[in-house]
Amino acid sequence: MRSHTHYLWFTTAKRQEIIDITDEVEREVTASDVAEGFVLVSAMHITASVFVNDHESGLWADILEWLEERVAPWDPGRYRHNQTGEDNAAAHLRSLTVGHEVIVPITEGRLDLGPWQRLFYGEWDGQRRKRVVIKVLGA
Amino acid sequence: MRSHTHYLWFTTAKRQEIIDITDEVEREVTASDVAEGFVLVSAMHITASVFVNDHESGLWADILEWLEERVAPWDPGRYRHNQTGEDNAAAHLRSLTVGHEVIVPITEGRLDLGPWQRLFYGEWDGQRRKRVVIKVLGA
Amino acid sequence: MRSHTHYLWFTTAKRQEIIDITDEVEREVTASDVAEGFVLVSAMHITASVFVNDHESGLWADILEWLEERVAPWDPGRYRHNQTGEDNAAAHLRSLTVGHEVIVPITEGRLDLGPWQRLFYGEWDGQRRKRVVIKVLGA
Repeated sequence: MRSHTHYLWFTTAKRQEIIDITDEVEREVTASDVAEGFVLVSAMHITASVFVNDHESGLWADILEWLEERVAPWDPGRYRHNQTGEDNAAAHLRSLTVGHEVIVPITEGRLDLGPWQRLFYGEWDGQRRKRVVIKVLGA
Repeated sequence: MRSHTHYLWFTTAKRQEIIDITDEVEREVTASDVAEGFVLVSAMHITASVFVNDHESGLWADILEWLEERVAPWDPGRYRHNQTGEDNAAAHLRSLTVGHEVIVPITEGRLDLGPWQRLFYGEWDGQRRKRVVIKVLGA
Repeated sequence: MRSHTHYLWFTTAKRQEIIDITDEVEREVTASDVAEGFVLVSAMHITASVFVNDHESGLWADILEWLEERVAPWDPGRYRHNQTGEDNAAAHLRSLTVGHEVIVPITEGRLDLGPWQRLFYGEWDGQRRKRVVIKVLGA
């Protein structure tokens, strides 16, 4: 059994941002020398997400708007968590909805994704240093 | 370490549909000859989900209604993604909410599910050929 | 390859409750003797969640309120599933939103979590005996 661990660091310019990380993940799969296995890609923060979707900027704008209007409005006064001095309770709820990690199968040494699937880091409370762990397991 | 990969294909009659795939997944676990491990079941499209829930048709109707009323209304004019000529932005947001993959433990050669847990494919933009990957890893 | 399986049982005092299970999961990772691998933590019921977030009681209150107000109101008359004699359809939809399982990487024999990440069991229909499976895989 082989394993391989790598960390990606992000400091986004905007507070909310969606970043395509497919190439970085593919590079670690290659580095792992795993032909058949799984790669876990997981945000190490509770106000961020990792997800699989479409590389289309209109959709990214839709996702950010939907998180604000439907999922959890930023509105700091609405949440008890923000009485601790934070203002980011909404980012926690957005992370819970979209999820913080994905597992992708590795087949014949490649990410076994569908034709339109790409991997994204979703930053819901950025402008500071944050991290994603990539862990490959297989043979 | 053993691994086993299998693809399921779907062309649903309706645009939104929920399909129980537990038996197909169990069959691949048996074929893999893995006694202890994980099976990943993952939609290869960004407008579909794989999830674990209850085999009860009233609940399936509730899920479809909830996706429309609470999660993301279909309403094509509402989304920027649909300016690319698509009308399925809502299906992307539904996939983000419900998730596109699950991992189930395999214990003593069987899916280690609770008494009411079943595996489902959730098609949110169907009537065309789509695919799910089943990948077993273990020993 | 090593594997290790353990079940946690819960009977919550309240119908909805959030319980920190990080220490229990860490204990099983140690017992597994796995240095590099994955641990799957998965609710065996379709009206519960396992998720990663923050150990902060204000946030837990926010999550419970958000599930009721934004995600899926309990309101039993609203759902077809409840015509089967149940009243818990909302708990199913909450489980679909938050998810029922997480995978955490194991690095150098420890849960490879970020500084604020903790593991939680989310009970959305409690006051009865329910179960979570912990499964470790690695080497």
